Amino acid sequence: MKLASLKSGRDGQLVVVSDDLTRMASAAAIAPTLQSALDNWAAVSDRLEALQGQLNRAEVEGEPFDQHRCHSPLPRAYHWADGSAYVNHVQLVRRARNAEMPESFWSDPLMYQGGSDTFLAPRAPITMPQSEGFGIDFEAEIAVITDDVPMGVTPEQALGHIKLVMLVNDVSLRGLIPGELAKGFGFYQSKPSSAFSPVCVTPQQLGDQWQQGKLHRPLVSELNGRIFGRPDAGVDMTFNFGQLVAHAAKTRPLGAGSIIGSGTVSNQLDGGPGKPVAEGGVGYSCIAEIRMIETIRTGAPSTPFMDFGDRIAIEMFDDQGRSIFGRIEQVVEKA
Amino acid sequence: MKLASLKSGRDGQLVVVSDDLTRMASAAAIAPTLQSALDNWAAVSDRLEALQGQLNRAEVEGEPFDQHRCHSPLPRAYHWADGSAYVNHVQLVRRARNAEMPESFWSDPLMYQGGSDTFLAPRAPITMPQSEGFGIDFEAEIAVITDDVPMGVTPEQALGHIKLVMLVNDVSLRGLIPGELAKGFGFYQSKPSSAFSPVCVTPQQLGDQWQQGKLHRPLVSELNGRIFGRPDAGVDMTFNFGQLVAHAAKTRPLGAGSIIGSGTVSNQLDGGPGKPVAEGGVGYSCIAEIRMIETIRTGAPSTPFMDFGDRIAIEMFDDQGRSIFGRIEQVVEKA
Repeated sequence: MKLASLKSGRDGQLVVVSDDLTRMASAAAIAPTLQSALDNWAAVSDRLEALQGQLNRAEVEGEPFDQHRCHSPLPRAYHWADGSAYVNHVQLVRRARNAEMPESFWSDPLMYQGGSDTFLAPRAPITMPQSEGFGIDFEAEIAVITDDVPMGVTPEQALGHIKLVMLVNDVSLRGLIPGELAKGFGFYQSKPSSAFSPVCVTPQQLGDQWQQGKLHRPLVSELNGRIFGRPDAGVDMTFNFGQLVAHAAKTRPLGAGSIIGSGTVSNQLDGGPGKPVAEGGVGYSCIAEIRMIETIRTGAPSTPFMDFGDRIAIEMFDDQGRSIFGRIEQVVEKA
Repeated sequence: MKLASLKSGRDGQLVVVSDDLTRMASAAAIAPTLQSALDNWAAVSDRLEALQGQLNRAEVEGEPFDQHRCHSPLPRAYHWADGSAYVNHVQLVRRARNAEMPESFWSDPLMYQGGSDTFLAPRAPITMPQSEGFGIDFEAEIAVITDDVPMGVTPEQALGHIKLVMLVNDVSLRGLIPGELAKGFGFYQSKPSSAFSPVCVTPQQLGDQWQQGKLHRPLVSELNGRIFGRPDAGVDMTFNFGQLVAHAAKTRPLGAGSIIGSGTVSNQLDGGPGKPVAEGGVGYSCIAEIRMIETIRTGAPSTPFMDFGDRIAIEMFDDQGRSIFGRIEQVVEKA
C-alpha cells in the first residue's frame, strides 16, 4: 500500500496512491489524516489496503496524483528520532571534524531526537536566514513510521511495529554542529526542519526490497541536476530498523506515528570510503562526506556546502526504474 | 485562565478550571482538545477566557475538579525542548560528573530536544524496567507552551508567543547520562517520558508572579513526603523564557503547542551552591544536586537516587498558599 498527505490544514488530507504513483483516491471516509490512521492502524489499515487495491485495479476512479500537492506524509509528528545506522558515514564525518569515533559505535546505535512540529513539504524550499557560515547540507536517508511500540521491545518484535517506510532529507547545518555538540546536549539549532518523500509505503508493498529491516535499493541524490550519490541503502547498514526502533524504546514507549530515521546512507568501497560518482563510485548522500574525501586527498575540501539557489533531489527507483516514494526536491532560499 | 485535559483518548478532553482549582467545565463546545485550541488560539482563547470567567463566578455550574482525572495538559505534543536556564544547576551537575562547564554557558542557552509522544499523566507512576544502575532522578521545572512562532524571532517577540505556563517533572536517568553524552548526540534513553502539572495557566492569570518571562514563586519538591526543595523559579534564572523560545526558533519555526522547559530550578546561596532544606536552605529540584553537595563535603554522595516505591511530588503555591498548577505526584514502579 502507498499513502500520501495532500496539503490541507496542519495535518494534511490522507489519500491512497496507486503503485505507479499516477492516481490517487481520498481516504477521508476511512481516516482524515495519516496520524489518525496510525492512531487506529489495526482498525483501518485493511480498509486502506482495500481502497488502494481498488485504485490499482481502476475499480475506483480517483484522480491524477500530483506530487506537488503533497506535504510530508506526516506534516507534523509527535516523535522524530534519527539514528546513524551507516557507521561508515559517522566515521567519515567525525574524521572531517577531527573527532575520534569510539569503537562502541559499531555495537550501540547513535540516535538524536529531532524537531517534528514543522516538517517541510517534499517540494518546499529550505529557507534559512543565512547561508554564510551555516554549512547547509542535505542528508539522504530512509525513515520508518511505527504504531504504538511498548517500552523494552526486542529488535525482532520492533520489526512488526514498522508500518510505513519513506525517504527523508535531514537538513543539517554543518557550520553550527561543532559548537553545538561541544555544549554536550546534542543537535538542536544545527538540525532545522526535515522534509520527507511525498509517498510512504508499507513494508509488504516493498516485497523483496525490504529484508530484515533494511531497504535494499540505491538511494539517489541529485545536487543541482547531477547525480551526487546512489549508495545502496541495504548495504553497510550496521543496525537494521528493528534495532533502531528497539533502541528508541528502551526506556519509554513510542507513540503511534513515531518516525525513526536511518541516518545518512553510506557505502564503503573495499573497506574504505567510497568514490565520487564522477569517478565511477556510488558517491555520497551528503556533502560532508565528499568534503572529507577531498580533505584526505588534497588537504582541504573543494565542494562547497549549499548556497541560496542550490537544488537537492532525493529519490529511489525499483529495478524497473519506477519511482517508489516519489521525489523530494528542494531549493535553498533566503528566509 | 486555567486549563486542563481530562484523560480521554490520546489527546484528552479540554476543560476550563476555576482559579481555585475546585471546579471545572467542559470546553468541548469551543475546542475538543488543548492542541486544537492552540492550533486556533487567536480564534478560541477569548471564548475559553469567557467560559472560565463564568465558571469562577459560578455562572455556569460545572462540576468538581479532580486532579486525578487529568492527563498532562498536552498528553502528547509535537515539540518538547528543555533548556538549562538555571546555569547554577548545570555547573553543579557537571562538577558532579567531573566535567568542565564552558564559560559560554552563561550567554548561550543549552537546550535539548525531548520525547513528546508519550507524556505521563501528573499522577501516573514512573515505570522503569530497572532501578539498579539507572540513577532515576526527578527534575522540577517550569515549562511554557507557545502558539506558532516564526523562525528568527527576538526574545522580546518570543514573550508574546508564550500562551500557557505549567510545571514539569523531567525524569532523568543519571546512570545512563554519562555514557550517552559521551557519544556526542545528547540525551535520548536517559530522558524517558516527562509528566506535567494537571493545570496550565496563562501568563496574564499569573499577574505579578510572571515578570519578564520568569515565574517568581518557589517551586516545591517533596521526596517521600519531605520537602526536598523550594527554590524560587524567578531567582538565578540566567535566561528568561523569551530568550529560550528565541533560541529554539533560531533556525526553524515552532509549531503551535511547542513546549519549552526551563531546566532544573536552582538557587545559589552567597554565590555558591544552596544548602539542603534540613539545614535551613531552599534545597534542590533534583537529587543530583544534593549528591554533588555531599560529594564536595564528604567525598561521596549519600542520598540515593530513586528506587521502586519512592514518591516525588512537585507543586507551586501563591502567596496565600493556594496551589497554582495542581500537583504532580508520581511513584517509581517496575515496568
